[in-house]
Amino acid sequence: MTKVFDRPEQFAETALKGFCAANADRVTMVPHGAVRAAPGARGKVVLLVGGGSGHYPAFLGYVGTGFADAAVAGDVFASPSTAWIHGVAKAAHRGGGVILGFGNYAGDVLNFGSAAERLRAEGIDARILAVTDDVASARADERAKRRGVAGDLPVFKIAGAAAEAGLDLDAVMTVAERANRATVSFGVAFDGCTLPGQRSPLFTVDAGHVGMGLGIHGEPGISTQAIMPAADLARTLLEPLLAERPADHDGRVAVILNGLGRTKYEELFVLWHHLTDLLEEAGLRVIEPEVGEFVTSLDMAGCSLTITFLDDDLEEYWRAPADAPAFRKGSVAPPPLIEMMEEQADAVAEIVAGTPESQEAGRCVAQLIGHVARALADAEEELGRIDAQAGDGDHGQGMARGSAAAAEAAEKAVTAGAGAGTVLSLAGDGWADRAGGTSGALWGVALRAWGQALGDERKPSAETVAQGAQAALEAIVQLGGAKVGDKTLVDALAPFVEVLVERTSAGDALGVAWSAAAVRSTAAADATAQLTPRLGRARPLAERSLGHPDAGAVSLAMCARVVGANLPENAV
Amino acid sequence: MTKVFDRPEQFAETALKGFCAANADRVTMVPHGAVRAAPGARGKVVLLVGGGSGHYPAFLGYVGTGFADAAVAGDVFASPSTAWIHGVAKAAHRGGGVILGFGNYAGDVLNFGSAAERLRAEGIDARILAVTDDVASARADERAKRRGVAGDLPVFKIAGAAAEAGLDLDAVMTVAERANRATVSFGVAFDGCTLPGQRSPLFTVDAGHVGMGLGIHGEPGISTQAIMPAADLARTLLEPLLAERPADHDGRVAVILNGLGRTKYEELFVLWHHLTDLLEEAGLRVIEPEVGEFVTSLDMAGCSLTITFLDDDLEEYWRAPADAPAFRKGSVAPPPLIEMMEEQADAVAEIVAGTPESQEAGRCVAQLIGHVARALADAEEELGRIDAQAGDGDHGQGMARGSAAAAEAAEKAVTAGAGAGTVLSLAGDGWADRAGGTSGALWGVALRAWGQALGDERKPSAETVAQGAQAALEAIVQLGGAKVGDKTLVDALAPFVEVLVERTSAGDALGVAWSAAAVRSTAAADATAQLTPRLGRARPLAERSLGHPDAGAVSLAMCARVVGANLPENAV
Repeated sequence: MTKVFDRPEQFAETALKGFCAANADRVTMVPHGAVRAAPGARGKVVLLVGGGSGHYPAFLGYVGTGFADAAVAGDVFASPSTAWIHGVAKAAHRGGGVILGFGNYAGDVLNFGSAAERLRAEGIDARILAVTDDVASARADERAKRRGVAGDLPVFKIAGAAAEAGLDLDAVMTVAERANRATVSFGVAFDGCTLPGQRSPLFTVDAGHVGMGLGIHGEPGISTQAIMPAADLARTLLEPLLAERPADHDGRVAVILNGLGRTKYEELFVLWHHLTDLLEEAGLRVIEPEVGEFVTSLDMAGCSLTITFLDDDLEEYWRAPADAPAFRKGSVAPPPLIEMMEEQADAVAEIVAGTPESQEAGRCVAQLIGHVARALADAEEELGRIDAQAGDGDHGQGMARGSAAAAEAAEKAVTAGAGAGTVLSLAGDGWADRAGGTSGALWGVALRAWGQALGDERKPSAETVAQGAQAALEAIVQLGGAKVGDKTLVDALAPFVEVLVERTSAGDALGVAWSAAAVRSTAAADATAQLTPRLGRARPLAERSLGHPDAGAVSLAMCARVVGANLPENAV
Repeated sequence: MTKVFDRPEQFAETALKGFCAANADRVTMVPHGAVRAAPGARGKVVLLVGGGSGHYPAFLGYVGTGFADAAVAGDVFASPSTAWIHGVAKAAHRGGGVILGFGNYAGDVLNFGSAAERLRAEGIDARILAVTDDVASARADERAKRRGVAGDLPVFKIAGAAAEAGLDLDAVMTVAERANRATVSFGVAFDGCTLPGQRSPLFTVDAGHVGMGLGIHGEPGISTQAIMPAADLARTLLEPLLAERPADHDGRVAVILNGLGRTKYEELFVLWHHLTDLLEEAGLRVIEPEVGEFVTSLDMAGCSLTITFLDDDLEEYWRAPADAPAFRKGSVAPPPLIEMMEEQADAVAEIVAGTPESQEAGRCVAQLIGHVARALADAEEELGRIDAQAGDGDHGQGMARGSAAAAEAAEKAVTAGAGAGTVLSLAGDGWADRAGGTSGALWGVALRAWGQALGDERKPSAETVAQGAQAALEAIVQLGGAKVGDKTLVDALAPFVEVLVERTSAGDALGVAWSAAAVRSTAAADATAQLTPRLGRARPLAERSLGHPDAGAVSLAMCARVVGANLPENAV
């Protein structure tokens, strides 16, 4: 259980500050991340790694010579926002292009992907490197669906060494993608972790049992077994990895035995004693193994085994020296101490004033977002609880944070004279930047698309509002790739939009149409508990998510009801 | 809770093997410990560190260039035996003398002290360095009574760097003792750890509370407080240390923020963020801080703060490069890989045959020890439970291990034709070597002294047996320094000896006298629950140990009863 924090929502940001202060000789803090205190040469390919906080040494502990150039830290177990990633990448960029490395989770895929697009639009060649090592999360023939776990360490280490060696962007990406394809992991969990400020753990494992293949945020595993002696556990961890040994591979492997937080060093050494024999029996030759904590999950009890099947290049880059706060290898001269970089001021977009009618509608929009934010703050714990049944339990936090930021951005826009469209668009940007995670990115594009449909000229009509809802749905489907029935917020949004369009086209007033749409949306959200998941936030088919309502659908329907209840009488 | 193990009693030994296998490029395994794979120069002062297992990176993770030359690993939370320490020291010795570094716990003091004596008797200059940094465990004017906690890191690091720099034994000891006097720590606990194979934790902290000053094995703290925000916790950790700042000190400090196992990195970084401000406010200048896990306590939740008030020498040695599996600093060339040293065969003492009468008595002694060993095996869990109320919960394990080894050694001695005295002496050696810990060392010297009183010539008389008991008591008092009323096994042994001597002098048969003595011993053991502890296994006065029976006294009285019940009818 996480015990040391101030306000839970400040945990990740304060930890980042403390990390940078403790390692001031090696890293320099930038907004939402850290870069090397001694940057690489001009023109060097930059490796930026990141993801949610709560996994240290991943990702901040990897920043250093021969490893990552920079890391971006999201909130606990939540993807950093597109803006955060983009900002750290700009601070780290040395002119040779940027590789954005992250574990393959939906929120990270969305936000790192958007950041790469934004960088490319600015003329910086940016590539994405999604680590997909967890064999429990999808079959071998669906490699791209696999989650990233402790394979982050060898894949990023190898990519970082290739970049340090002076390879160009294409060449580093070739090595990095080969390292990812050659890397497989399997993990077990004995007990769950508890997010800062939460009273109960994200998930639990029955006493005397071990969860096989559970993800590092409690994502569904493949089975539960009775707890076993270390010798048997070693075999259990290794077998699924041996099954993925490439044909005609010569047996050279990097091996990482990773503790998730509460499974301690001596336990890992006991396991390693057994693994050395089993690895030898399997004809594998272990090159510079690592036994310790490399990708944790707060104080989760459990461990994972990772193997990278090496070739000549991969072996060379795995063995290469590195010097990061949490990972050292070989001999590297310590970097010179340099001055802290000044924090970059967040860029503030200039707001063009709307027409008086649109300004009035903008005030109404801002008030409605304020209602939504207050309702989501009240519902934070309940939404977290629903999410924890099949997900990582951070949905309530993300929605509360995002909507609060959206309300603040909307108020600022109103004060600056913005019309309804700009108010809603900027609310969306605020939401995405502060919420992080998958839902943050989706709500961000949705509100922005809706705002663009409203515009800043005319008083929005009921039909314009419905068209905006349609645009929001399309933006979400385009970015997230989910369809109705995939057990996501689309399941609640699609019927909402359908009813809203139908009723406003038929001439109903907005208030009437909206209320009817909210009722249909709520029924659809409730029904997600009966759905067989097909996408399930990019997670594999898994029994645990069956029968649980989708938190994203539940919160969307809730927002629809709150807006419906607060629409002014004179609404269009 | 420790989840990964095979047979609990093999945990520490298997972990040692796994550690050495995972770090084969840096360390070489020797029986019960590890030495540097690339030993220091001939004539270099050797720093050997050690103590119970369960504290990794302490102590094995410290073995490397610029730090320790060797480490010896006891069983979990139990001092290594004198023989183990002696063996590792002999393997590591380079001709320049040996410093034996350990945390200040009674069992370690006894066993490292005895090992140093044994080394000196063999012509190797050996010194002891007991780390005494825990300010919660005794007042500043009783510094020598303080426990050693995470101060191990800076004290051993500085001593190791001084030895690496080529100082001679006296000079290294001068620096090391100055480092120890300059080092203070204060820790807090949120929750207890669970020993391998145990069902319940060694101790617990009430939910929503934090134990102030609790030791790393659950030794009594000074108070319990409601859990507090990180900013307040930082102040709470720092204040007791600031109170010990030496007069006219210039403010240069090494600072270590140490996690005990389950309190994870990001929590420590949050704390560190607050500490940096507080340290600066206090006028301290932090030199190369360390934030992480350096002295753990299995999966205990909690953390400690350590400050070393530096002078020029201490700063130089604190900053010096080091390269150990769990601690690196600066730039050190990696050591060359060398061959594994062969395991040293344990020396076997030659046994001189006893007279036929004494051989017969020896068989009886061996049988009685066998009964004791079986009874202690049965009572292992119960004794652990009693010990955990005020101690570290390992008493049952230690007694079971020690008596089993004693019974085995006694049987071997009988087979080799030993007389009663040699059977009992070798049983004592076996007990001490295998049990480790305080009680192991005390039982070892007691049985050896008793055996010497019996001799190998004559059939022992009732009075000779009583004299042996008297000699055993004296040996224990001399080695352990405890008096009646200090709440140790002496409380049960002294009345036993008194009654046994009195009744055998009055002409009672041994069986009658022994039974009466055992009754008195049992009453005395039960009464330890009412005693105010004065020594309490070298722990400070502490409320938690009041009202709990002393496990050492309980087990001694139990042994007395078992022997009494099994004395043959024809006993002298």
